[in-house]
Amino acid sequence: MAANIGDMIMLFGDSLTQRGWEPNGFAERLAYVYNRKLDVINRGMSGYNTEWVVPVFEQCFATQHEQQHVPKVRILTIWLGANDAAPPGALHHVPRDKYAANLVKLIRMVRDPASPRYSPETHVLLLTPPPVNTHQWRVGGALERNFEATRSYAQAARDVGAAEDVPVVDIWNKFWDACGHVEERLSEYLQDGLHLNQQGYAIVFDEIIKTISATCPELHYDSLTPVFPPWDRIDLDNIPAALDKRSIFSNQ
Amino acid sequence: MAANIGDMIMLFGDSLTQRGWEPNGFAERLAYVYNRKLDVINRGMSGYNTEWVVPVFEQCFATQHEQQHVPKVRILTIWLGANDAAPPGALHHVPRDKYAANLVKLIRMVRDPASPRYSPETHVLLLTPPPVNTHQWRVGGALERNFEATRSYAQAARDVGAAEDVPVVDIWNKFWDACGHVEERLSEYLQDGLHLNQQGYAIVFDEIIKTISATCPELHYDSLTPVFPPWDRIDLDNIPAALDKRSIFSNQ
Repeated sequence: MAANIGDMIMLFGDSLTQRGWEPNGFAERLAYVYNRKLDVINRGMSGYNTEWVVPVFEQCFATQHEQQHVPKVRILTIWLGANDAAPPGALHHVPRDKYAANLVKLIRMVRDPASPRYSPETHVLLLTPPPVNTHQWRVGGALERNFEATRSYAQAARDVGAAEDVPVVDIWNKFWDACGHVEERLSEYLQDGLHLNQQGYAIVFDEIIKTISATCPELHYDSLTPVFPPWDRIDLDNIPAALDKRSIFSNQ
Repeated sequence: MAANIGDMIMLFGDSLTQRGWEPNGFAERLAYVYNRKLDVINRGMSGYNTEWVVPVFEQCFATQHEQQHVPKVRILTIWLGANDAAPPGALHHVPRDKYAANLVKLIRMVRDPASPRYSPETHVLLLTPPPVNTHQWRVGGALERNFEATRSYAQAARDVGAAEDVPVVDIWNKFWDACGHVEERLSEYLQDGLHLNQQGYAIVFDEIIKTISATCPELHYDSLTPVFPPWDRIDLDNIPAALDKRSIFSNQ
């Protein structure tokens, strides 16, 4: 851990990520379980589509030269598509193929050894956008959204994950299964047909943790050591050395 | 904002700070309102007293040399004393004068121009420990705590704040007033007589924000600009330049 900041989990995406700091949101839940191990940094930008976030990501994610000075991003979640899937003509619309290409661009910025932002220590997780409940969203929504479009964009994200060998956290399917394939019942997980409520974020958190367990168990919060020791493990005869910061991997 | 990380609010303290990532905890609430403006970093260490956190703070807070490479701590909360106030003989006990001297040491590490960690951009807030509800804490508590001792340590913190010209967020008095000076009624704000519940953290959050408004209004979240523009303010004819990161002070 560098002074001021420690290694981190970076959450990158749109409003679904930005709102992760709501009580019981997935950012809050991750910060709670990773406390004293990894910091959680929220880079969710409400209303952004993949076209707009690519230049933002270039400014958010350190280049290899900068990486010497800054803490490492150990886990990076990329969760986009809810805005891209707006219908053609809408301000937020990004064509499906372009959406997929932008996801590939984001992933390769981190995973391609030729990229200036190559970061082999970063475990990337790709999340699919959740299904839209048009019965809810229609009511007061100024932005157009379409159930079938979001389903199709979620499939595009799955395809990108498979092609790029990036673990996919399949929010679309988990929500769809959770509501028994009945669109109206998505209101159990969505607060307005598009954005998640606490029950929705509980699924997102659980699925992220399951995916970490399955694909990089060494980054599960239970596998990591707190940077500073628990108070009942401090060797009181050996202060201050007993309080030196330790690697979060020191038990591995 | 450096890549990976932005300027931040650092929360430094014991379990009362560590648990700030609970839903509706003060860390979660701060992260929500400062989202896209300042990151919130939790450096709360459960069970720690001021003796133990001094060497930890030296490792958490960047030296002037390091400060060139890392994001700035714009707001630093120091909230300690709940453990120091354990009675003499208890593992966590730190004598009152030593507690006060340690608070002074922490403050001067940041505010003394001669300190290697001098950081004039950091606004320090000193929080007093909340009163203990011995009627609650006695029940299952393995650690001894004493109402009058905590009152006395809170006064010591107030005195340090006054002497060092550091704003004091007086949690002790706010809780005491909120419960009508009836110790048993502290259960409305404490989950176990020592640690805060959501109502308790709501007071802490509100008092921190009030103190920021009163002592450094330029750091109130409403005074700051998001690092990346709101989606409905993006100049779409001027991408990607319209998406360049901006100073959070660019409206001031």
